[in-house]
Formats: sequence, C-alpha cells, structure tokens
Amino acid sequence: METVSTNRSFAGTQGVYSHASAETGTDMTFAVYVPDHEEGAKLPVVWFLSGLTCTHANVMEKGEYRKAASELGLIIVAPDTSPRGEQVPDDEAYDMGQGAGFYVDATQAPWSEHFRMRSYIEKELPTLIAQEFPVDMGRQGIFGHSMGGHGALTIALRNPDRYQSVSAFAPIVSPLHCPWGEKALGGYLGSDQAAWREYDACALIEGGARVADILVDQGTADNFLDEQLKPQLLVEACALADIPLQLNLREGYDHSYYFISTFMADHLRWHAERL
Amino acid sequence: METVSTNRSFAGTQGVYSHASAETGTDMTFAVYVPDHEEGAKLPVVWFLSGLTCTHANVMEKGEYRKAASELGLIIVAPDTSPRGEQVPDDEAYDMGQGAGFYVDATQAPWSEHFRMRSYIEKELPTLIAQEFPVDMGRQGIFGHSMGGHGALTIALRNPDRYQSVSAFAPIVSPLHCPWGEKALGGYLGSDQAAWREYDACALIEGGARVADILVDQGTADNFLDEQLKPQLLVEACALADIPLQLNLREGYDHSYYFISTFMADHLRWHAERL
Repeated sequence: METVSTNRSFAGTQGVYSHASAETGTDMTFAVYVPDHEEGAKLPVVWFLSGLTCTHANVMEKGEYRKAASELGLIIVAPDTSPRGEQVPDDEAYDMGQGAGFYVDATQAPWSEHFRMRSYIEKELPTLIAQEFPVDMGRQGIFGHSMGGHGALTIALRNPDRYQSVSAFAPIVSPLHCPWGEKALGGYLGSDQAAWREYDACALIEGGARVADILVDQGTADNFLDEQLKPQLLVEACALADIPLQLNLREGYDHSYYFISTFMADHLRWHAERL
Repeated sequence: METVSTNRSFAGTQGVYSHASAETGTDMTFAVYVPDHEEGAKLPVVWFLSGLTCTHANVMEKGEYRKAASELGLIIVAPDTSPRGEQVPDDEAYDMGQGAGFYVDATQAPWSEHFRMRSYIEKELPTLIAQEFPVDMGRQGIFGHSMGGHGALTIALRNPDRYQSVSAFAPIVSPLHCPWGEKALGGYLGSDQAAWREYDACALIEGGARVADILVDQGTADNFLDEQLKPQLLVEACALADIPLQLNLREGYDHSYYFISTFMADHLRWHAERL
C-alpha cells in the first residue's frame, strides 16, 4: 500500500492510499479517515460506497463526514467505484464500465477480467484495511449513495454477521426494476436475471436475507427517484420481511452531495449507535 | 443576474449565479447560500473571498459552511477570484492573472482593463446582492483564505464602517513582504510600492486603519507559512495598533480545505456574534 496524501482535518487524518489489487488486476485508490485516538485503540469502521461516475474523492471532498466521524470515533473508508485504466474495458455512457462497477463480480466478457468489485469490497480491501489501520473489524457498518447505496444494501444483506449497521442515501433498491440496473447487470452478469438476484436488495430480502434494520434518506426532488431509485420497492420488501426500515423523504432535496452532506451526520450517528 | 443552479442543503438553498460585470467587463459567477428564513426577513451576510486558483466553487464544495450558516442564520456569498475568459489577460503561472486577482484594481497594462476585483467586491457585487437576496446590508462580515484572507483583511480595514466582523484562514498578511505579493502587486500596480500599501493589511494598520478585532486561523504544517504568509507581521502590526488579534496556530494543519473546513464553524460563530 502506498500513501498518496494525508491531510489533518477535524482532529484526525484524511488519507488517500493506493495498492495493486489482485481482484481487479489494477491499481486501486481509496480514502481512509482516521480520527485521533488513544495509542493501541481499535476503532469501528464504516464503509461508504459511492455512486455512478464517482471516485474515492467525491465523498471525501463533498461528503462532510469528518466532523461527525471525529466526534463519534469512527474510521471511514471510501473505495473507488470500479477498476480504471487504459487496459480496463469501458462504455461510452457514464452508467457502465469505469466509474460504474455496481459492486458485482462480472461474469461476462469483456468485463469479467477486471470488474470484480464485489470481491474487492467484501474480501480484498477489508483484509488490507485490517492490516494497515487501527480498525476493530468486529464493529463494521456500511453505507453509500445511489449505486453505492445499492452496493451497501446488497453487501450488508449478504453478510449480516459482518456489518452491524447499514444505511443509504438515495439507493438503487432494485437493479432488476430500473434502466441503470438492467443495463449494468445485463452487461456484467448476462441476460439470465436469476444471476442478478444476489445483487438486488429487494430480491435478496424476498429470498430470505435479513439485516437488523435499515436507514434510507431520499430527496423528493431527486431526478432519478421515479425511474431508477423506487424506494417504495424497498418499503414493500422490508414490510413483508419484517425488517424495520426508516425511510426519510426529504422535501426539495436532490441527488447531489448537497443532499448527502446535509444528512451525513444523522447517518453516522445511526451507525455509531449500532457499533 | 442568471441562476446557474440551486440545490437544497442544510435547510437552505445553495445557489450559483452569473451576471455581466461592468467593472471587469466579463461575465462573473458567484455562489450564495441562503438559509431558510421567515418571509420578509433580512439576514446578515458574510463574504468569503477565496485563494489563488480558486473559483466560487472551491469553498462551496469543500468549505463545509452550510450547517453553521443555517444554524446561525447567515447568508454566505462566495465570489470568483478574478475575471476569466479568452479576452482576459493571463499569466502562465498560477499566482497571477486568471484565478489570482488579489482583490486589487489594476493600474498597469495589460491588466487594468479587466482586473478590477476591488471595485467588483466593494461596490458592484454588493449592489447586486442587496437587490437580489434577502440581506441586511447593515450587518456584514468578511473572511477568506490565503489570497482571499488578504482580500478580506484589506477590504475590512478600508471599510470599517461596513463590515462589523473580519477573519481569515492562512492569510497573506503583507503582500509587500512575500514573493506572491511582490509579483502580483508589481504586475497589477507597478513598481512604485507606495501604491501597494492600500492592498497590504499590515501597511494599512501602520497607516492608521482600524477594525474592532480580527480572528486568524493558521496551520503550522502550511507549506506557505514561512515564505508567503508570515502571520507574525500581522501580530506585530496589531500589537502596535492595539487591535485585538486572535491568532490560532493549528498544529499539523496545512493550507487546504481540510484545514479550512475544520475551523469554518468557529469563524462563522465569530461573525455571528458580531453581526
């Protein structure tokens, strides 16, 4: 692991790091914020998965998480959203390929060689984080935005023993039922939608996956609300499964980091209470 | 004035606007954050002047001012740092020309036609802000970062009746005594340093200018501290002039927005207490 940069902020250290990923076959960059702590202490860690087009940097620069993370004693990890580089396949549009990994392990050419973001986020990066940072891996939460909200929900639902808390901002709750998901999962996983179900929060819940509870914030002025995000599908799935879902509809807020930053501290408190 | 964008954030509206400036002869873009307020209310306004290379967007995206501004009921205005465009002279380096207006009215060719940032910030933009936003122009504060800290200090010192509060992050306190200032003021104002003194906070104080008090935060790990910023010069000038200066040296913090954002709420409280 190489240190790209460190900056002192809110009585902690905001770092950016890179490493050669065996899963993706590329160098991967990620951000880690570590609040000041007593020597030898191990802090709980909360993973933030970003949305389409984002790198590690968007939430690091615009997410306004450091004040709350510092006060609550939480380490925040922000990975990239896909492998990147000239050797990595891409799509002309923003919603597939580089910047749009959808947190899946792709099975279809040309994506399957590098697009292994599920294994990267679930296995490889946690191992590195556990080695290099003062984290208590017995206390982990996960959250994210849009495509990253999809990632957080699906990863938590598949690994309920690992993550004690999960939340999302404006998540894609069912890739099976939106154009973004149909395009990306169709490309990465092929046309057999049975293979998509482990990457669909609502389908996972229908199939018996459970978490203790879920927090979602959703802006009512979000351009993607009706066509892509469809939180009502998650409401219905959670109701049938008796999973407590706190869905906060935020009047007038959109899909941007102006929305995310407003409710960031609420989400970190949600995680801290459960970690 | 045209509205470029608006986003709801922290129970307020973050807007970006543009207008044709008579002073600079160019279109100018600026950001204004307006917290929700009672109909007909007029809110105090705090001006944030940005540093070298910045536009209105840097502090808007990374400054983390909206939570405190919303809670304190402050309107925040963030102007650009220079005129911009193909017809506007520039310098190959980052510290002169576009993105580096130094808040002066240039007198030298080729700069004098467009580089009128003093008159733009002191006269033209306040008139527009007063017309278009719910501001109480009797309650104004001003602050800024680096070159913008220089701008805030000099503008406040020249207009003590207009601004009731002034503060700065890592300001250039004396352009007369640093390479950035020597280059920029030499270029914009010519070689006669007598003309620079109204654009030098320490020289203005030596010449009798006064403000009620000043807050400065400065990181000790700031790369520009010793060669360019030299807060000790401001300490000495304020001591001789009996101007109360609260200088907070922040151990390990650098020149970036990771530093600014950490102490942003402190500064807004400083302003709110005086407005």
